[in-house]
Amino acid sequence: MNFTRPALLLDKEKCIGNISFMAEKAKYHNLILRPHFKTHQSHTIGKWFRDFGTDKITVSSVSMAEYFAGDGWNDITIAFPFNINEIAASNQLAGKIKLQLTVCSAETLEFIDQNIRHQVGICIKTDTGYNRTGISWKDTGQIEKMLEIIINSRKLSFYGFIVHNGHTYKASDIEMIRSIHDESILALSTLRLKFGHIVPNMVLSTGDTPACSICENFKGIDEIRPGNYVFYDLTQFHLGSCKFPQIAVALAAPLVAKHYERLEIVIYGGAVHLSKEYLYIGDNKIFGQVVDLTASGWSDPLPGIFVTGLSQEHGIIKCDEEFFGRIKVGDFLGIIPVHSCLTADLMKSFVTTQGETADHLSSSNVKNLFTR
Amino acid sequence: MNFTRPALLLDKEKCIGNISFMAEKAKYHNLILRPHFKTHQSHTIGKWFRDFGTDKITVSSVSMAEYFAGDGWNDITIAFPFNINEIAASNQLAGKIKLQLTVCSAETLEFIDQNIRHQVGICIKTDTGYNRTGISWKDTGQIEKMLEIIINSRKLSFYGFIVHNGHTYKASDIEMIRSIHDESILALSTLRLKFGHIVPNMVLSTGDTPACSICENFKGIDEIRPGNYVFYDLTQFHLGSCKFPQIAVALAAPLVAKHYERLEIVIYGGAVHLSKEYLYIGDNKIFGQVVDLTASGWSDPLPGIFVTGLSQEHGIIKCDEEFFGRIKVGDFLGIIPVHSCLTADLMKSFVTTQGETADHLSSSNVKNLFTR
Repeated sequence: MNFTRPALLLDKEKCIGNISFMAEKAKYHNLILRPHFKTHQSHTIGKWFRDFGTDKITVSSVSMAEYFAGDGWNDITIAFPFNINEIAASNQLAGKIKLQLTVCSAETLEFIDQNIRHQVGICIKTDTGYNRTGISWKDTGQIEKMLEIIINSRKLSFYGFIVHNGHTYKASDIEMIRSIHDESILALSTLRLKFGHIVPNMVLSTGDTPACSICENFKGIDEIRPGNYVFYDLTQFHLGSCKFPQIAVALAAPLVAKHYERLEIVIYGGAVHLSKEYLYIGDNKIFGQVVDLTASGWSDPLPGIFVTGLSQEHGIIKCDEEFFGRIKVGDFLGIIPVHSCLTADLMKSFVTTQGETADHLSSSNVKNLFTR
Repeated sequence: MNFTRPALLLDKEKCIGNISFMAEKAKYHNLILRPHFKTHQSHTIGKWFRDFGTDKITVSSVSMAEYFAGDGWNDITIAFPFNINEIAASNQLAGKIKLQLTVCSAETLEFIDQNIRHQVGICIKTDTGYNRTGISWKDTGQIEKMLEIIINSRKLSFYGFIVHNGHTYKASDIEMIRSIHDESILALSTLRLKFGHIVPNMVLSTGDTPACSICENFKGIDEIRPGNYVFYDLTQFHLGSCKFPQIAVALAAPLVAKHYERLEIVIYGGAVHLSKEYLYIGDNKIFGQVVDLTASGWSDPLPGIFVTGLSQEHGIIKCDEEFFGRIKVGDFLGIIPVHSCLTADLMKSFVTTQGETADHLSSSNVKNLFTR
């Protein structure tokens, strides 16, 4: 491929492999797969899921729901605490598609009940230990109050309890991911025991990519909503969620300067391309790992060759002598991102290793419609 | 103002105040002001500089140069190591405007000399201690070799030595910023002494916002290229580059959930809005500081109220009891960003506190023209 500027490469075969893997896993465990589309935010990539039977999706904003509804997706859960300022846009969406909104409080629920003009499903965001947002699964008083509002409403129906265990991302090993996941699904199951008599058709839904990739216990769970697995990234690789060859995106970035005295090179590829998300490899804070670009994609990771510094447009890569010796100004290097969702959001489009392009919501104008 | 979604508020009066301050300072010190437009990346905001006499600008990519050339700017320095893959676009630009390219090596310089079709100015990127990129000011052998290539070329003319002292951002106090700056301008001055006889019209150019804001010694310097000062941000405030009321941008973000048990709130405003840039306030890693939005802008900083966690769309704010008690779901809060350049790049547009909108390169399609 002939690039002139940084571009986000997408290996379609790896991506389809990831989509297929999770579809098979969901089928095997008899789970609804409602993949989270916030990672790719792409009509093109969204269509690839359809070939594996996906017809229900998750998004994290009304903008994203609008974007995917615009491409024919008609069963969408917005898995983000409902923003009451977006009631008008939500009403428009609810008039067109099967929409589920997510709530964390009785107040918001009452607001929706009073202001929504169409049938919507309600997900109660449930906290089973992450402590970012949601109602604690132990707060059955609050949950009961919310279920009553739903049951007594003519517009609202109860979809289920949804949880996101983001703390799996802080796990030190796979056993800890399993343990977080197992505790969470047990907590969710107690909610079915407790409230099954009043909301018999509830969906128990869990989400994070590490647990959905690694775990095999989904006892009592009805639905999974992983997102990042469509691409994976360095973070997932180091957590053990994927193998390196499953990572489906790499930033192609040109080398613009070589500094012999410190074996460092500078790429045109910075915080506005990769994002400032980092991880620690030993004591080293890194922003990406380097691969060689090949005719059909990219190589295995180059051991120890990382992006060690990032400013707005500059990336700094610390090299060993072998690597430094064989690269030259103008070469494009591949950078495996630390967090593929943020890199995709910044890059605003994809180029497949076959040379096709794929869209991203960020390059559309939907996201910018912020005023009433 | 009536927002429904996160929006980047711009206080035009503060912004104009910052533009005016630096224009006055440059005039007082008899310096060429060539402001770096990578912070705002906006045609609208760019026009405001014209009222203060600015007709020369700095950018950090060919994309940005194309964007601003498209709005009538005709003297542009691309202060980023030249990417040889962009020779075609650079030729187009050089045919239209007075263009300066930046080089870090004789190899790149030779490539430009052989492939450029129009007159271009050459800046030698000079390293006086930051160690990110550029030729060390002590490496006079390499500099002489590069100057010879320029002198012997029919297309190239020498613009000058340009330095960016990004290490001022790591300074622990104002004295350290002054000391970095003073050492750097002394180093640049030795280059004039050394090479003035062969390139008598050289421009000595320095850039960083902390030094340009704080320092009064510009002895021997011809040009300054600060950028961030147009908005400033929390990082600059904590460095001492600005006072809080000079910060000209704030993210307006709606409150979507309140968690009484831990006095935390969740806003719709995450890494895709603010960026993951952080700083430490004491032992606390923070991603923004909260202000109250007012009819005409925003308040002083709310002491101790910071964005303490960020995921893709969620921001977590740790509150005190007073603040927690007086805010409710649906309210818009103001968040002063840690790094305004990255927040602006993510938000893709501005809304002034008077309700006007301003563009940003990221919402145009220029940035996406990455293939030949």
